[in-house]
Amino acid sequence: MTLLESTHRRKNPLTGRWVLVSPHRNNRPWLGATEAVNENVLPKHDENCPLCPGNTRANGDSNPDYKYTHVFRNDFGALTPNASEQLQSLESDSDLFIADEASGECRVICFSPEHNKTLPELSQNALHEVVKTWKQNYTGLAQQYECVQVFENKGEIMGCSQPHPHGQVWAHSHLSTEIEAEDNQQLAYYEKHGTALLADYAQKEQADQTRVVFENEHWLVVVPFWAAWPFETMLVTKDNIQNFSQLNDAQTDSLAQALKVLTTKYDNVFNCSFPYSMGWHNAPANRGSDEQHWRLHAHFYPPLLRSATVKKHMVGYEMLGESQRDLSAETAASILKAASTTHYKDTAG
Amino acid sequence: MTLLESTHRRKNPLTGRWVLVSPHRNNRPWLGATEAVNENVLPKHDENCPLCPGNTRANGDSNPDYKYTHVFRNDFGALTPNASEQLQSLESDSDLFIADEASGECRVICFSPEHNKTLPELSQNALHEVVKTWKQNYTGLAQQYECVQVFENKGEIMGCSQPHPHGQVWAHSHLSTEIEAEDNQQLAYYEKHGTALLADYAQKEQADQTRVVFENEHWLVVVPFWAAWPFETMLVTKDNIQNFSQLNDAQTDSLAQALKVLTTKYDNVFNCSFPYSMGWHNAPANRGSDEQHWRLHAHFYPPLLRSATVKKHMVGYEMLGESQRDLSAETAASILKAASTTHYKDTAG
Ligand SMILES: O=P(O)(O)O[C@H]1O[C@H](CO)[C@@H](O)[C@H](O)[C@H]1O
Ligand SMILES: O=P(O)(O)O[C@H]1O[C@H](CO)[C@@H](O)[C@H](O)[C@H]1O
Repeated sequence: MTLLESTHRRKNPLTGRWVLVSPHRNNRPWLGATEAVNENVLPKHDENCPLCPGNTRANGDSNPDYKYTHVFRNDFGALTPNASEQLQSLESDSDLFIADEASGECRVICFSPEHNKTLPELSQNALHEVVKTWKQNYTGLAQQYECVQVFENKGEIMGCSQPHPHGQVWAHSHLSTEIEAEDNQQLAYYEKHGTALLADYAQKEQADQTRVVFENEHWLVVVPFWAAWPFETMLVTKDNIQNFSQLNDAQTDSLAQALKVLTTKYDNVFNCSFPYSMGWHNAPANRGSDEQHWRLHAHFYPPLLRSATVKKHMVGYEMLGESQRDLSAETAASILKAASTTHYKDTAG
Repeated sequence: MTLLESTHRRKNPLTGRWVLVSPHRNNRPWLGATEAVNENVLPKHDENCPLCPGNTRANGDSNPDYKYTHVFRNDFGALTPNASEQLQSLESDSDLFIADEASGECRVICFSPEHNKTLPELSQNALHEVVKTWKQNYTGLAQQYECVQVFENKGEIMGCSQPHPHGQVWAHSHLSTEIEAEDNQQLAYYEKHGTALLADYAQKEQADQTRVVFENEHWLVVVPFWAAWPFETMLVTKDNIQNFSQLNDAQTDSLAQALKVLTTKYDNVFNCSFPYSMGWHNAPANRGSDEQHWRLHAHFYPPLLRSATVKKHMVGYEMLGESQRDLSAETAASILKAASTTHYKDTAG
């Protein structure tokens, strides 16, 4: 029995957390809940959508007649600026009741004026504009905030309350738990090896190819050795860059292509609009150091496991013990490798 | 503006992870997916259910005509014994490709012969038997395995594939990521203060009462200061006990009562069978030390937020940054405190 078939654990070097891998369990019957597939055919423009061009939002603002992307402040943001009042210390024992202030800003980024499009259905040119918008918003917010989280929740299953193609940016001055963990782990690796963890990792995956889904001149798409979600991938720079503000035109174009290929492959796995949460991990901003231990990368966390309606539930054992997967990272990579780069909607009929 | 209204973060001292709290956001409108409520009236005995007494399971075994609980090995367990073959080292660089063997055992625990019952609907006596079964299985498995995870996934929303009331036990020799984190944190606290983190915490919550939902002679139910899920609670011993094998009869009875009260209150929050994942954190077994830094406790992680059909999605920002909640822990505690201890099904009609 090799590593691919017998139960084992793998460690995520970016977070220090483990995942339990049980490939033999992939054959168990599924009797549980199935997810609804939203087959609604959406219109190109929905007059009730707060994200469509020309429409008026709840706060009275109206959206411009935008051509590519449009960005506005989230009317119900989890973070607000100037929440800097002194926190009342609730308890004197600071090892048990630890609280800290948090202020910041939340924005919504519309990816396209067309209500019924998703990232894989955008042109390479339109995707280039999306990346430029990420870069622009990152660069602006990073002047004020140390931690700028760009992300997208896609699909109702991911709690996305809006079908109109969009993502978000949450920016704040503290480091989030995940960024802090990745920062510590990358720094420790750098201090030990003198090289960047993700640069070394990308190189090894590139040489091996087993888990590589796609690569072009500037980007690598890989199912990480330590992936927790069934079809989890990491999109990592091949260059020595730490954050969005460093992206040049060639890297931007190359990224637009990688996004198109990856999201198209995702949709083709089960011939459905593949739900996921994805987001970018930039090095913390404004520390005055060159952050050589860090590499800019994105994580894609898609929940589907066996079909458009059966997802992986990260529940019970996963919440109380650690993440668990059935399908091995290598099998997932081979499925994604084999998936076509022509979107199923373009080949159908 | 006090801590309860303005955005802030709180730190979980058991894991070291933070949660972002945005109480003002509780008022945003919800336009996203709603969860189906399963209104099916279930029979007391279902001849197709693999957990009902007398029925035959897929592997050919048949269940005895049990009166309280029944335990069997999971036919599709994520862990199997003797998976102790040598792992092939995939790569030489052990800082990037880290894998370890994992062997263990997975069991299913039926809580009641009646197909259509849930924990709050069991008698105090039947709940006493459930706790005794947990203790028995823990004690047996802890002789062989360091980490014995007892848990329950309740409700389809939690990936539970079986309505018949049941929980699981996954036992293995390594410490899971969560147990390792809690062990380290409790040990560090003990070395610093000479007292147990959870003993000190329980005492302070008891004195303050703000977040206490219920307490009896041996147990405290509290919405932790650092709770991430909307109605998350911790059920923690008031005594100096570290694991299930130490439970005496009085503690068992007292626990049966606390379980009855807490799960009844949960169902009464939205007048529905309240879904959750819950599970027990015992001190690691077989280390030959007395584990004085540890206290036996359970976490309840229920996903519902505003109604029987609107849950909190831990997605995008939460996966890439850190957990986020709208409702404050104090508000959740006051709702749970106010919820009746008579089950809504018993008062209806
Ligand atoms: O074993 P079950 O109940 O079929 O499976 C459920 O609980 C397990 C343990 O939390 C999870 O790994 C599965 O994803 C979930 O569907
Ligand atoms: O802001 P949205 O898209 O309405 O909300 C969604 O994404 C947020 C950020 O991941 C989550 O906190 C919410 O639970 C989710 O429903």
